[in-house]
Amino acid sequence: MKNLLLLFFCTMSFTLIQAQEDIHKEKIDAIYTEALTKGKAYEWLDHLSNNIGGRLSGSLNAERAVQWGKDELDEVSLDRVFLQDVMVPKWVRGTFEYASIITGPGRSMNVPVCSLGGSVATPSAGLLARVVEVKSFEELEALGEAKVKGKFVFYNRAMPSDLINTFEAYSKSVNQRSRGAAVAARLGAVGVIVRSMNLRLDDYPHTGAMYYGDLPNKLRIPAAAISTNGAQLLSSMLSLNADLDFYLKQDCRNFPDVPSHNVVGEIKGSEFPDEIIVVGGHLDSWDLGDGAHDDGAGIVQSMEVLRLFKAMKYIPKRTIRVVLYMNEENGLRGGKAYAKYAKNNKENHIFALESDAGGFSPRGFVFEASPEQFNQVSSWKTYFEPYLANNFKLGGSGADIGPLRNGKIVLSGLRPDSQRYFDHHHAANDTFDAINKRELELGAAAMASLVYLVDQYGF
Amino acid sequence: MKNLLLLFFCTMSFTLIQAQEDIHKEKIDAIYTEALTKGKAYEWLDHLSNNIGGRLSGSLNAERAVQWGKDELDEVSLDRVFLQDVMVPKWVRGTFEYASIITGPGRSMNVPVCSLGGSVATPSAGLLARVVEVKSFEELEALGEAKVKGKFVFYNRAMPSDLINTFEAYSKSVNQRSRGAAVAARLGAVGVIVRSMNLRLDDYPHTGAMYYGDLPNKLRIPAAAISTNGAQLLSSMLSLNADLDFYLKQDCRNFPDVPSHNVVGEIKGSEFPDEIIVVGGHLDSWDLGDGAHDDGAGIVQSMEVLRLFKAMKYIPKRTIRVVLYMNEENGLRGGKAYAKYAKNNKENHIFALESDAGGFSPRGFVFEASPEQFNQVSSWKTYFEPYLANNFKLGGSGADIGPLRNGKIVLSGLRPDSQRYFDHHHAANDTFDAINKRELELGAAAMASLVYLVDQYGF
Repeated sequence: MKNLLLLFFCTMSFTLIQAQEDIHKEKIDAIYTEALTKGKAYEWLDHLSNNIGGRLSGSLNAERAVQWGKDELDEVSLDRVFLQDVMVPKWVRGTFEYASIITGPGRSMNVPVCSLGGSVATPSAGLLARVVEVKSFEELEALGEAKVKGKFVFYNRAMPSDLINTFEAYSKSVNQRSRGAAVAARLGAVGVIVRSMNLRLDDYPHTGAMYYGDLPNKLRIPAAAISTNGAQLLSSMLSLNADLDFYLKQDCRNFPDVPSHNVVGEIKGSEFPDEIIVVGGHLDSWDLGDGAHDDGAGIVQSMEVLRLFKAMKYIPKRTIRVVLYMNEENGLRGGKAYAKYAKNNKENHIFALESDAGGFSPRGFVFEASPEQFNQVSSWKTYFEPYLANNFKLGGSGADIGPLRNGKIVLSGLRPDSQRYFDHHHAANDTFDAINKRELELGAAAMASLVYLVDQYGF
Repeated sequence: MKNLLLLFFCTMSFTLIQAQEDIHKEKIDAIYTEALTKGKAYEWLDHLSNNIGGRLSGSLNAERAVQWGKDELDEVSLDRVFLQDVMVPKWVRGTFEYASIITGPGRSMNVPVCSLGGSVATPSAGLLARVVEVKSFEELEALGEAKVKGKFVFYNRAMPSDLINTFEAYSKSVNQRSRGAAVAARLGAVGVIVRSMNLRLDDYPHTGAMYYGDLPNKLRIPAAAISTNGAQLLSSMLSLNADLDFYLKQDCRNFPDVPSHNVVGEIKGSEFPDEIIVVGGHLDSWDLGDGAHDDGAGIVQSMEVLRLFKAMKYIPKRTIRVVLYMNEENGLRGGKAYAKYAKNNKENHIFALESDAGGFSPRGFVFEASPEQFNQVSSWKTYFEPYLANNFKLGGSGADIGPLRNGKIVLSGLRPDSQRYFDHHHAANDTFDAINKRELELGAAAMASLVYLVDQYGF
């Protein structure tokens, strides 16, 4: 009798689990159908990219984007939409950025360059100097002050093309951009020219943040990115004539911090309102393109997660929040301000999801989680198999949600296909026409599906 | 002692298997590195797309492509390169294709159309008739001859956007294009207009093959594709005025078959030369674009598989053959001729791999295989995990290798991400600029890795 009862309960519980799984499958299928047939992500991104455009922190466009984000979230009929004050750096590109290789008396070749974000200007007449080409800081240090002083340092280490994940390739090269000027300045260089972080050979210079660290103001030297084709050209000209001159002129400028905002929207949880799940991307972008992939895509996908739940009349158990973070690109002030707000209000965030890797076909997610937590999310992989978004890995999640890290919260990042990302990243061709509607929508659906499962089970 | 010996042999064999796996991992890593850093696929595709261009069977360009394929394979220093004779259909688009919606006396709106491949021309003055819009053959049959006779049939069933695999969505709609004219003609229609097989709303009409079957010549009616935006417009105009007229004029034409060729290249196997592994794509393309994705990508990826082996000095155990099939698009004559050649020569093909789904990021492979064979290939999935090409499934492989099916051979198709494919498929925007170099190269590397493993183990 006891055995029979045990069998009965086992069968019952197996049946219940099966039924539960079927319900989840159905719900996730409904999420994908809604996103692919009636999604708003693409229309939103069209507006953000084409009617607002590039929106660097501190710019008028950034404030327009804040207002647009709030207005659109208001339209979704969330329980609460509000702005969070945050002071952000203000750097302005200025009106010109111009460079040429001086190949001989009265002869020069223009090369495409752009100022790096945070860089100082050149003198108003521009800078003319010889060039020393290096591939690494080690190589530069070995040359020493004697061979660097008074020259441009040309950092020409390409992103390695044999790595499958292009973000890994980026991480192998980006220190040239972020710290190159500070390192070169200490050796007496007058400026730095950095090969664009781009795996393709093309004519787009790619901007991005650079930092002088604790370098005194008077030692700060201008920094510019050169297109990959430009870098190839400069390198080959140097191999013909190591004594050629390079000319750079740019009038970018740093200003004091200015006020800006994160945009926050939420659906209050019906059972556990104090457990908060947050999803987001960054609202600011670089100024050369319209920031469609970086990170307009993440913004509209995050907004879409909450819109999908409302459209499907899904009532979440936990509080679901979307945050459009300000200033990821050159300060991370928005991410820090949000984490501070959460801490000050003693909020209990159980899960944070970020989309900031482009609007391409989703391949899966990365997680920062304990082994038990990762086991739990891994048990959901099968739900993502039909959508080919089932590559779940441990790894760094995202910049904006990083400040929420506290040893308990699970952090996650959407991981789309990375092959095309650095063709557009921080360049003038990061534009809406490079977005595929279905790829963008599939990313939003994958995110909503993951948030749905976390909402169902918690951690 | 016996137990100790057993343990010894178990440990040895485990160690050997481990060593073998490490060798495979290294080899596959080397394949990817060569493809991503010194690959020729992109450069080849540039030439095929931009210097030759669209290459419909029977055209001068198709013969140029044959010569180019042979010349390039000769450069790779294979053991044998040869042409296979094959007679192919010849259909020519002609000099004009033109359509408009007549909205009132003297008022009309042009809509983008293109003739479907195989269609007859309109009378030289064009065709003017009313329009009946349907979503399916069932709907058309239900209307019957009374409501169809003397009119255009407008097939307007969209590809369903909620399916994740866009090829499935294609298969749900493509019968309108392939058989629509034959069905409508029997009900007395004067012509058919077919909504383009495209998931996007845009202005590109998408061509493709259509067949009249056994319909007598005198009953054959012209068939044209209309862009998705054009289809939306026509449908909404019809909802306002069901009696509007549609005007179509096209002068395409069918000619008698002409001679053409498959291009075949091979590396002779060093241990089992009689076991043949074949990899290929189709050399012909539609004529509106330059056929970069369909199927220039498959051509250069297949050529690259053999070039990679030569570049790496890999000596295959089995014979590895590349076939550039002619006439996949509107006849499959090349695929049939190759299978016939193999049969006539009593060749033993153990594996055939096709790439004909675009040059996008590879996600995995489909296989036509016995359960045992599929178990074997599935055991190799882990090798493809680091490259995110590990989605292995049973399913239809490819058109050109289909005729090789004999119950023993394993057939396989590369499966790239499918989201963007039908944006370009058979349209004027299937062009080289829509190709991403890395995505193309990753596909070639995945194919070479699979061929390498089959070569190592056989079936």
